[in-house]
Amino acid sequence: MATSLDALFRPRGIAVAGASNDPTKPGHQVLHNLLEAGYAGQMAVINPNASAVLGVTAYPDLASIPATVEMLILAVPAATTPAMAEAIRLRKLQRQDLRVVVAVAGGFAETHTEEGRAWQEQLAEACVSAGVRLVGPNCVGIIDNRNRVDTTFLTGVHRRSSGISLLSQSGAMGAWMALEWGALPVPVGLNKFVSLGNMAEVDMGEVLDYLGQDPTTRAIGLYVEGNPRARALMEAAARATLRKPVVVLKVGRTDQGSDAAKSHTGALAGADRIYDGAFRQYGLIRTTRVDDFAVTLSAFDRLPLPLGGRVAVLTNAGGPGVYALDALADHGLSLAQFSPATKASLRATLPPFASVGDPDGHVDMTGGVGPRQVAQAVAAALRDPGVDALFHIFIPTKFNSAEEMARELLSLLPGLKRNSLDKPLFPVLLSGHGVAQARKLLEENGIMTFGSPDQAAAALAAMARYTSARQKPARP
Amino acid sequence: MATSLDALFRPRGIAVAGASNDPTKPGHQVLHNLLEAGYAGQMAVINPNASAVLGVTAYPDLASIPATVEMLILAVPAATTPAMAEAIRLRKLQRQDLRVVVAVAGGFAETHTEEGRAWQEQLAEACVSAGVRLVGPNCVGIIDNRNRVDTTFLTGVHRRSSGISLLSQSGAMGAWMALEWGALPVPVGLNKFVSLGNMAEVDMGEVLDYLGQDPTTRAIGLYVEGNPRARALMEAAARATLRKPVVVLKVGRTDQGSDAAKSHTGALAGADRIYDGAFRQYGLIRTTRVDDFAVTLSAFDRLPLPLGGRVAVLTNAGGPGVYALDALADHGLSLAQFSPATKASLRATLPPFASVGDPDGHVDMTGGVGPRQVAQAVAAALRDPGVDALFHIFIPTKFNSAEEMARELLSLLPGLKRNSLDKPLFPVLLSGHGVAQARKLLEENGIMTFGSPDQAAAALAAMARYTSARQKPARP
Repeated sequence: MATSLDALFRPRGIAVAGASNDPTKPGHQVLHNLLEAGYAGQMAVINPNASAVLGVTAYPDLASIPATVEMLILAVPAATTPAMAEAIRLRKLQRQDLRVVVAVAGGFAETHTEEGRAWQEQLAEACVSAGVRLVGPNCVGIIDNRNRVDTTFLTGVHRRSSGISLLSQSGAMGAWMALEWGALPVPVGLNKFVSLGNMAEVDMGEVLDYLGQDPTTRAIGLYVEGNPRARALMEAAARATLRKPVVVLKVGRTDQGSDAAKSHTGALAGADRIYDGAFRQYGLIRTTRVDDFAVTLSAFDRLPLPLGGRVAVLTNAGGPGVYALDALADHGLSLAQFSPATKASLRATLPPFASVGDPDGHVDMTGGVGPRQVAQAVAAALRDPGVDALFHIFIPTKFNSAEEMARELLSLLPGLKRNSLDKPLFPVLLSGHGVAQARKLLEENGIMTFGSPDQAAAALAAMARYTSARQKPARP
Repeated sequence: MATSLDALFRPRGIAVAGASNDPTKPGHQVLHNLLEAGYAGQMAVINPNASAVLGVTAYPDLASIPATVEMLILAVPAATTPAMAEAIRLRKLQRQDLRVVVAVAGGFAETHTEEGRAWQEQLAEACVSAGVRLVGPNCVGIIDNRNRVDTTFLTGVHRRSSGISLLSQSGAMGAWMALEWGALPVPVGLNKFVSLGNMAEVDMGEVLDYLGQDPTTRAIGLYVEGNPRARALMEAAARATLRKPVVVLKVGRTDQGSDAAKSHTGALAGADRIYDGAFRQYGLIRTTRVDDFAVTLSAFDRLPLPLGGRVAVLTNAGGPGVYALDALADHGLSLAQFSPATKASLRATLPPFASVGDPDGHVDMTGGVGPRQVAQAVAAALRDPGVDALFHIFIPTKFNSAEEMARELLSLLPGLKRNSLDKPLFPVLLSGHGVAQARKLLEENGIMTFGSPDQAAAALAAMARYTSARQKPARP
């Protein structure tokens, strides 16, 4: 599918208006980010007072750039809008190449001044009449780690891509999440990041439709606040969720949060209940914590969906195992029931003092278990048709280094895959530095790992809810 | 106060039985840890097959060590117990120096074999009759970061001390927590770590009493499971909590967790309700998540107690501010009410588009606010007598670097302290790498920082509960 939003993520040629050699200017940071991201198309800077910025040739105006400019990034004061509007019209007339304007500059309608509103209208009008899409103004903009585009002025952006795309109504929330997730012990990268600011033209619903149809996006994260076009947005989310999971975070869940949201976004009191109803009706998955949000999206991206919520828990330490069972119960998840064959196989594999199936679905392998036995027990439990998902709680012991356990697991899992036992495995590796190497080894071999039973439980619960919602007739 | 447990934390002279030059042996790791911790007393190794291990002189037996041995660490097979029991008796007879045995070796009563039980009895009997305290067997042991003692075989122990001591009934849970907390972006160090294993002699109640009276311990973390001496332990906790906060984590909160705890620790079904009642009655603070546990203990250690639960929230970003209000409400905390003077002062300080007191106690300074204004607003809100605690939610923006904000804060806060505005400040700095330097700067200057509104809210809620419990008559 080709849409007019393609140029937002895959522009052939970008010009940055306002990029200067002064590193405190947002435009400087935007250009820096484009270069750091490794954007491979043609780049130009619009700056009448420089010949080049960060090695990119500068031109006095848009009209004089000889190369193709499909995307224009505006990092200039709002007061330049009349001139910019004219430049956009002219470029389109003379070169026909311009397809999208990303206005990261502020000073528009968000200032609630007449002047700001007028500039925003003028910019939108110029773009619409020229057939150019407008993102913003007052937006963080977009990052596309696959196509190596970054129009933002954020610092410390994690550059690895994934199957996760994040659409945030709030620039600050979006920035918090994208930057925080990229700094996790196992960083959560983003495929696309989109924050649209004032939404003078391109709105969230359209982008959500785009992400829903984007073949490289496997899971969508949506941060939403009170939204003037909420119905259209929810309908787009409902369409997207038929194709892939949409995990949503919305603040203002509580009375005092909702009071503040009202002043922040103009959301109506009680609006959260309406949103929450829509999330449920459309099969969107709601999370409440930013840390769970990241891990849940990552699990959707990287793990097969469970067929249900029956979870087996294997642990080599009693306390952490019970802790995990509590976390699962907090999220409404129940233990699987092992088949007699599985129990027999686990008992044959594990030391005699291991506790198998007490309660059913739970195995305390005890601290005396060795790495190979752990891997074999994981394999045996995964094979049980009554098990939809497996929690593998592990803490290194005197007899069982995390790396050795990881290597044993890696040697057994490919065989499992060939038997098409395609169900999610949650290796929860506990104790910080002591499991860092093992996590790295597993991650490098495509096995997702978890650092906390709480987050693993939140992720599995979300996946089980998505499975269950898909089994009901959808009502978009 | 001097007690017979002093030698556990401040031994003059340590001997390690079972330390060998084979790095896969637990005894090797124990000796390595003692050296890494920087233990300053005399050290000796008991190993008839080596002349030295890791540079420490080895002797064929306990009797032939010329130096003082107040602590003997047993990292030898349980089958050596008869010989060890005799050696303990002999040493006490000949030298009178031995005061405590820490038996990290396993193979005792926890194996549920007659042999294991007999060895444990024999070891305990030998120690008791010689007037030597016995920790363990089958224990992780103790770490004392102030006195540079580490009897454990854990790898990756964080060596910085703090006012937090952790007493864990489970070695695995204790190891998980101690190692995980030491690996956090802002590591949470421990003053003392104690895990007693089979508790053949020294039990948790006695250690809790010791920690309650230890002047360097400001907050106690307690991990407890079903415990045969639960009443004595709870009474010790009640005594301790009159002096300092005791934060408790207990698993088996849910039905399925409780079922598994039953098989793990022999706890009775329904025992969790009894424990929970005791926690409430005695004013202990219960947490359910390991991550909240760390931050809550750290807040108790480092921040002044709030006089109540009325919290003001200042934010430079709307969404994250509402997110924080939701988190506070989830923990039962309500917003403060600003005095008219505070509102006037905030309005005079902040840009005109800032939202002050909508709802009351909440200030959206907006992204346009500068670093000095942020610090001034924080100071103004802290001065309000109706504010018990302050959440300062911050995300770096184009106009407001985290470092500059931190520097402004540091320049204003000493003045506040002199006016004895001694109430807890929760700087919640969001977005990973982008605030790492600012957090470091604040932390180095003694200001505790937070990386998540959820954890800050959990910590403040715990502190407010402790304040409230102390205002009621205690019933130890």
